[in-house]
Amino acid sequence: MSEKREDGYRDKLRNLQIELVRLQRHLIESGEKLLIVLEGRDGAGKDGSIKAILEHMSPRESRTVALGKPSDREQGQWYFQRYVAHLPAAGEFVLFNRSWYNRAGVERVMGFCSRDECERFLDDVPVFEEMLINSGVRLFKYYLDIDKAEQKRRLDARRNDPLKQWKISPIDEAALRHWSDYSKARDVMLSRTSTKLAPWTVVSANDKKAARLNLIHDLLSRMNYRQKGRAVRPAPDRKVVFPFTAKALKNGQLAK
Amino acid sequence: MSEKREDGYRDKLRNLQIELVRLQRHLIESGEKLLIVLEGRDGAGKDGSIKAILEHMSPRESRTVALGKPSDREQGQWYFQRYVAHLPAAGEFVLFNRSWYNRAGVERVMGFCSRDECERFLDDVPVFEEMLINSGVRLFKYYLDIDKAEQKRRLDARRNDPLKQWKISPIDEAALRHWSDYSKARDVMLSRTSTKLAPWTVVSANDKKAARLNLIHDLLSRMNYRQKGRAVRPAPDRKVVFPFTAKALKNGQLAK
Amino acid sequence: MSEKREDGYRDKLRNLQIELVRLQRHLIESGEKLLIVLEGRDGAGKDGSIKAILEHMSPRESRTVALGKPSDREQGQWYFQRYVAHLPAAGEFVLFNRSWYNRAGVERVMGFCSRDECERFLDDVPVFEEMLINSGVRLFKYYLDIDKAEQKRRLDARRNDPLKQWKISPIDEAALRHWSDYSKARDVMLSRTSTKLAPWTVVSANDKKAARLNLIHDLLSRMNYRQKGRAVRPAPDRKVVFPFTAKALKNGQLAK
Amino acid sequence: MSEKREDGYRDKLRNLQIELVRLQRHLIESGEKLLIVLEGRDGAGKDGSIKAILEHMSPRESRTVALGKPSDREQGQWYFQRYVAHLPAAGEFVLFNRSWYNRAGVERVMGFCSRDECERFLDDVPVFEEMLINSGVRLFKYYLDIDKAEQKRRLDARRNDPLKQWKISPIDEAALRHWSDYSKARDVMLSRTSTKLAPWTVVSANDKKAARLNLIHDLLSRMNYRQKGRAVRPAPDRKVVFPFTAKALKNGQLAK
Repeated sequence: MSEKREDGYRDKLRNLQIELVRLQRHLIESGEKLLIVLEGRDGAGKDGSIKAILEHMSPRESRTVALGKPSDREQGQWYFQRYVAHLPAAGEFVLFNRSWYNRAGVERVMGFCSRDECERFLDDVPVFEEMLINSGVRLFKYYLDIDKAEQKRRLDARRNDPLKQWKISPIDEAALRHWSDYSKARDVMLSRTSTKLAPWTVVSANDKKAARLNLIHDLLSRMNYRQKGRAVRPAPDRKVVFPFTAKALKNGQLAK
Repeated sequence: MSEKREDGYRDKLRNLQIELVRLQRHLIESGEKLLIVLEGRDGAGKDGSIKAILEHMSPRESRTVALGKPSDREQGQWYFQRYVAHLPAAGEFVLFNRSWYNRAGVERVMGFCSRDECERFLDDVPVFEEMLINSGVRLFKYYLDIDKAEQKRRLDARRNDPLKQWKISPIDEAALRHWSDYSKARDVMLSRTSTKLAPWTVVSANDKKAARLNLIHDLLSRMNYRQKGRAVRPAPDRKVVFPFTAKALKNGQLAK
Repeated sequence: MSEKREDGYRDKLRNLQIELVRLQRHLIESGEKLLIVLEGRDGAGKDGSIKAILEHMSPRESRTVALGKPSDREQGQWYFQRYVAHLPAAGEFVLFNRSWYNRAGVERVMGFCSRDECERFLDDVPVFEEMLINSGVRLFKYYLDIDKAEQKRRLDARRNDPLKQWKISPIDEAALRHWSDYSKARDVMLSRTSTKLAPWTVVSANDKKAARLNLIHDLLSRMNYRQKGRAVRPAPDRKVVFPFTAKALKNGQLAK
Repeated sequence: MSEKREDGYRDKLRNLQIELVRLQRHLIESGEKLLIVLEGRDGAGKDGSIKAILEHMSPRESRTVALGKPSDREQGQWYFQRYVAHLPAAGEFVLFNRSWYNRAGVERVMGFCSRDECERFLDDVPVFEEMLINSGVRLFKYYLDIDKAEQKRRLDARRNDPLKQWKISPIDEAALRHWSDYSKARDVMLSRTSTKLAPWTVVSANDKKAARLNLIHDLLSRMNYRQKGRAVRPAPDRKVVFPFTAKALKNGQLAK
């Protein structure tokens, strides 16, 4: 990041990262399991958010999971099976960079799964997640939301940024072309899989830094841990990070 | 097996094994996934039944899964996680020699899990199994039922059979002592986890050979496959192998 | 097996199986690791031998490993990697039904690897196996040797045996056609990978039962364990099971 | 990092990171496998170096491996087995944050392995690594070397840095107390496992930034890839990063 004006971003982030370290100590001591699911369109800022979260955490007790395409064998398995293998064990802090929700997003839009498979997935998810939560997994689901102009800007920037060349894939190319299909898929996904036990939290991510700070802030505010500090007060900015509701959808709080 | 009178057992078994080979060819061609869960007290005949089933099947597409004690790390994971790793992929025929139902049996009786964990397990199982079934897994659950005198006879025989020494474990020793606890645990397990989609089938297993023949027969009778042959007609003996129902329980069809 | 004349086979096998159970108890107590590599042409009797060995052993401490074709990802890995994952841990008894030696056999004959890859493999094997052995793995390598007429008889029988249909594959079909290529590949493999630390033992396998009995006998005779019994005396029949040597090759002790 | 004077560090790093992205594209296209082993005392800067290397690389094709203590089961396996599972597949870029060399370092110094096990390890390593290299793995081994005063400074700083609390472990506490044991262990390790095929490269790491820049520079200078750019010329600073040799040891180029 070679941003010019920092607006105190680095300091604020640092304070939140200190809290994340405290949270991690708590997880290790208590054996609690934490799973963060991060979704969002191409360019929404998932990689950057993950780096901000993990920057100072213990590499042995934290990990990020970014699964590639399923192999032939995996394609014949229970859909959730390959994700289950990466769930957090006691004390672990795991981030899914995209997740089982692929089925409700890219797979649905690009036709990689059948209509039936997508429907079954949407039915299964609340049940599956409830089981995980009841077994002691703390599950947080964040959707990073950007608008069309911002996505275009970022995908264009990738093409010119020699550090981001690897991010360009044929599927990304389709992201803009299928903008409204992805919007619809997002609305269906959020509506059907935001449950009381496992609600979605939307993060307005046009402003990358505000998005990161508020996402971390929100996460910390939902957890109890020793020495929870001032950085977690006051509350996160609810214009940036807010619970998904049918009303939020109707009010146009998500990018069209 | 050095049985003297064979009563045509070998011939009958051979005919059923030919059918199993046909079933397997069907699974491989269609990509169907088959999972058999085999439960029963110590000495009920699980190992022998599995050998009879697998004797002539392809070692590459069939396997038996007998998980040992969970490791420390596994103990801190979602309870089903280590079992999920062994679910059948497309075309596979998998036998679980004991299974997730450990939690409702040995773990409950011997106090290896808390009351709460056991309750949650009994609540979760129907939901979990429904998901597997909806995803295309053909699931069959067999409970091998023996009576107390027969269990005693078999555990005694183990002690004198140099080929079965390895089967003797301290937990087995407890099997007889805890006979009625295991009976109660069995009744609760069958009652709460026998669902329409994933019913339990009870196999009266005091007569080993009849049990094996009828279990295989029952399994075959529930599957469709090409060249399904005469061995599968007439129906299996419903006195030996029958669906679990509350009535069967009340009528004393299970060993007390 | 519905053989008529048993020649005491069952009794002899039973006595050896009792010894195998004793051997296993020893492994579990001592933590020794045992690995058996079983090679031989199609129809040589590998599956049957494995069944005879494992019939009465503990399913939790013994297993057979029969890997299928490598996946795309595996094909890009270190050749030994996918086999290493299945090596025995402390106390375990593992049987490889075919093994890394695929590269010197079917892969070489059918052209699934390059000449270079095969050469490197032949160079690497002694070094790799020495490392395993030095780390405490007890490694035994058996080559089941049948002659051409016997192979033809068995492959023909498969076609007519409804229990063995699954064994028929296009590659098997090639087994007879490539008889002499396989002979040459076998000679090269045995010559270059039979080392002092990890010698090959050849088993003349035209007579299935004699082969099984002598293979197990030979294995037992090489191990020390408590209560080692009479079944292991006298020595195995050295006409059936004998160490591979250049001389044995020259003398025509292996099928041409 | 909140360093005041940057000395162009960020710009230099950025230029090298652009090269790393090019290198990664080359790996993916060619299917080459790259493995970096990073060793060094506590506080030597392994975590920071890895972050600098991976900051802009594709999370799907790069990963860092930091194995914890072996489980009971792993402790009974072939020593290299658990590491083998994480070797790079075709096109992958893998960083080992500590590695099999634990046996020659912390395990030896703290007495977690026997003298014999350590000796065998030192004998096995060159053979094991040669096999990997011959199979197409590009292996680079870097030892980050700091002096005693610098280690003390960094371990003290950890105690006061709320972001580094998790790094403090009882074993770290022993790092300074066992300074000279670790020095001796390092000298033996480097002397016996620096081979022609798999030489060690020492990185003088008292200056973190210079260490990172020169390590990356050195790595890039050893690889061929398309569009290799100016950042890789001129040569890395050989006072900071230099091949391990007996002479370098005698000349006191490593911290005493």
